[in-house]
Parts: sequence; C-alpha cells; structure tokens
Amino acid sequence: MPVLTSLQSNTVSLVNNYDTWMFDCDGGSWHDDQLTDGAFDVLCLLRHQKKTIVFVTNNAMKSRRHYKAKFDKLGIEAYMDEIYGSAYASTVYLSSVIKFSKEKKVYVIRMSGLEEELKDEGIQYLGGTDSSDCTLAPFFLADFVLDEDVAAVLCGYDSNITYTKLSKAFQYLTRNLGCQFLVTNEDTTYPNAYGVLPGGGALSAPLRYALGKDPLCIGKPSTIMLDCIRVKSSRVYLPNL
Amino acid sequence: MPVLTSLQSNTVSLVNNYDTWMFDCDGGSWHDDQLTDGAFDVLCLLRHQKKTIVFVTNNAMKSRRHYKAKFDKLGIEAYMDEIYGSAYASTVYLSSVIKFSKEKKVYVIRMSGLEEELKDEGIQYLGGTDSSDCTLAPFFLADFVLDEDVAAVLCGYDSNITYTKLSKAFQYLTRNLGCQFLVTNEDTTYPNAYGVLPGGGALSAPLRYALGKDPLCIGKPSTIMLDCIRVKSSRVYLPNL
Repeated sequence: MPVLTSLQSNTVSLVNNYDTWMFDCDGGSWHDDQLTDGAFDVLCLLRHQKKTIVFVTNNAMKSRRHYKAKFDKLGIEAYMDEIYGSAYASTVYLSSVIKFSKEKKVYVIRMSGLEEELKDEGIQYLGGTDSSDCTLAPFFLADFVLDEDVAAVLCGYDSNITYTKLSKAFQYLTRNLGCQFLVTNEDTTYPNAYGVLPGGGALSAPLRYALGKDPLCIGKPSTIMLDCIRVKSSRVYLPNL
Repeated sequence: MPVLTSLQSNTVSLVNNYDTWMFDCDGGSWHDDQLTDGAFDVLCLLRHQKKTIVFVTNNAMKSRRHYKAKFDKLGIEAYMDEIYGSAYASTVYLSSVIKFSKEKKVYVIRMSGLEEELKDEGIQYLGGTDSSDCTLAPFFLADFVLDEDVAAVLCGYDSNITYTKLSKAFQYLTRNLGCQFLVTNEDTTYPNAYGVLPGGGALSAPLRYALGKDPLCIGKPSTIMLDCIRVKSSRVYLPNL
C-alpha cells in the first residue's frame, strides 16, 4: 500500500492505537486552498484502516454543505455527517442536547451558514440576515416589540453586526426570563490570508460587557462541541473529559 | 434672599465649606426634560455665593454647544467653559494633557458630538460619521490602506457601529506602533426613558476582546476627566486624588 510507505513508522503506530480521529479544518487540514503537508496521506491511511474521522471547525460562517464542497474541491474524501462546524454544533446543542422547544425561537447574530443549519434542524429563529436588523437606521426602543417566545440568543462572527442587533439581543437577554446566551465560538481574532481581523468571539463582547456575564460557548475548546458529536454520531467513541 | 430660606440649614452649611462644585448632568441634574428636585435652588445658592461650578457628563453624543442649549431650555444658568462632556474631555486630554501632535490623526468610533469637539481643538481625525466607514458593505482587508499617521483610536457610544469601523480600528491598534487605545467612557449600559440599551463602553468591547487589553478611559469615574478640568479651568481647585 503506497500510503503506508510514505509515512513514518511512528505515525503508523500512533494511528493503530486510536479508533476516532478529529481534525481541525481551516488552518489545520488546509490553509486557504492549500492542503497541509501530509494531510492527504494521513487521511488515506485512516480511511484504509476503517477509523472514524470527524472534522471540527469553529468557523460558523459556512454550513456543512459548504464544507463538503470545500473537501471535494481539495480532493479529500469526507461525508456530511463527519463535519462539525460550530454553526451545526450550535443547532445540535439546541435541538438534541437541551431539547429546545419547537415553539420557542432563537435570536441570531450571525451569517447565513447558521441560519441554514437552524432551518435544517427545524428551529425557529429571528434576526440573522433579516434586513430589518441588518440596518444602520436608528433603533428606537419605544417602537420595539418584544417577542416573548425568544428563549435563546446565539452569536457568532457577523460582518453585518449592527447596534439594532445588539440592542434587540440585549432586550431578549434582560427581559425574557431564562433566555440563554450562547456563542458559536470565542475566537478573539479571525486570521486570514491578508492579516488579522476581530473574530466571532469579539462580536459578542458588547453583550458580555453590557450584561456583565459570559455566554455558554459551543465551539472549541468548549467540550460542548464534543457533546454534540457524541449525540449525533453513534460511531464515535469519545471518552469523558 | 428667598433661595436660602427654601434650603435646609445643613445644605447651606455644606455649601459654605467648599469652593468648587461638580454636578452630573443626565440622571443627575435632570431626568429627560425634568429638573431634579432642588437642583435649581442649590445652583442659585452656589451662584449667589460665587462658587465655581462644573458640569460633568459621560454622554459623548452631544457637544458642549448641545449641552449649553439644554441648560438654557431648562432655565439653568450655565456657561460653555463650565461644561465637561466626555467628548470634550477626550479632546482636551489629547490636545492639552498628552500634547497630541497636530501632524497625527485619531481614528474615531463615535458620533458627531465628538467630531465637533475634535474640530474645535484642531485635531485631525478619520472615521466617525464618514460614509465609507458607516457601511454594511463587506470590509476587504486586502483593499485597506493603512494611514501611518493614525496614532490613537478613540471609541465611545456609536449607534452606527460597523464591522468596517472595528476592523479599521483593530488595524491601527495592532499595526501602528504605539497607537493609543482610548474610550470616552466605560458605561456598560445606556438607560433612557424607554428602557436600557448597550452603552458606550460596550461598543468598544470587541476591540478590548480582540486585543486582549483595556483602553484608557477618559470619562467618569476615571480621574483623567479631572485632569482635563484642571488643565482647562484655572478657577477650579481640585485636590489630587
């Protein structure tokens, strides 16, 4: 088998010792459109040995469908049910871990990737890419109608962050009793090919600061991501941490 | 003197003991358009006794001119040089406390009140109400041209907060060596007649979070506000804290 001969013997020995393998995506398995050196060979070896593979990423901008397309483009064998982005993990957390009521709604500060995942899981949501929230028109609290069914606020990277979104989220978190404060990830920065920008975690910081409390984080390094993988993947054996 | 007879004798005694009197504005001297009970009588007494009066406010949305008009409307005798908003104090801090170079520029995340004060002090600035920053169009880091003359970022309450502004501010703070990170105030919330909204301090939180460091705060309760009053008002005697 050519794959094995191209790998160090200690790599092969390591592979033999574990049944489930988890890989980071952007900046881990690849950088922009370039596969990481050795990634292809290691993944081929794991497939050959029938290992369970999970791809995890804190990037909640893209849905699993988007990631599947990226894997295909890079020539990596990957399946939808192996991909856990923080957008998908957030919806799994709501639907399968805490059994979020189908009658309740989530107020979203996020981009379309998250909305796609919420739709797929049948979770009602407000905000996100709604044009009445993605606006720089003044927010008048006197005109705001509180939706009492909003029982969670979920924030992530949102390049369309507005004061209207922050203000509405703040109303739900302070006026709807028990409303949960969730973030897809706590990444302070968003490194990319041209430099570094404020990350998804930074964009929920106004709410942390105004509320004086931290949200529950779904993405890495939170173990909630692992809980979501456990719930959805019967093939995955993950020891409790 | 009718003023004195309407006041408690212990108030009169207190007034006699101090030369300089500082008053908060919104929520202190008045609530919305309603003067606080007793405020008018106390201010008349202080004027009659030739005391030095200073009005301080963390509200950086309005310039001193705006505040002077508010005092006039409420029928309170007040003069421009007695009014210290955090917008004005921030410009005094730059121009008179740290002697900010006229060749350098400030990148502003704020509303027009601050820009008016910066103009009055002859300080160059970028951002603020500039339409190329007040936009929800995507921010492309590859297209961003860093202005190497930006030596400070000054943030406050800005209902037109955008990812473009946060991204540009982050570039200046991380790429221009020694660029100062200043906030007009650290108010977590902005209480108003209809409820509570995220405050000016909350809107600089993405930068605090992404940078992993706190800014220098100009407004109350920072003593920098007092330094600015000392610099500008020779009549004011303020003991060192």
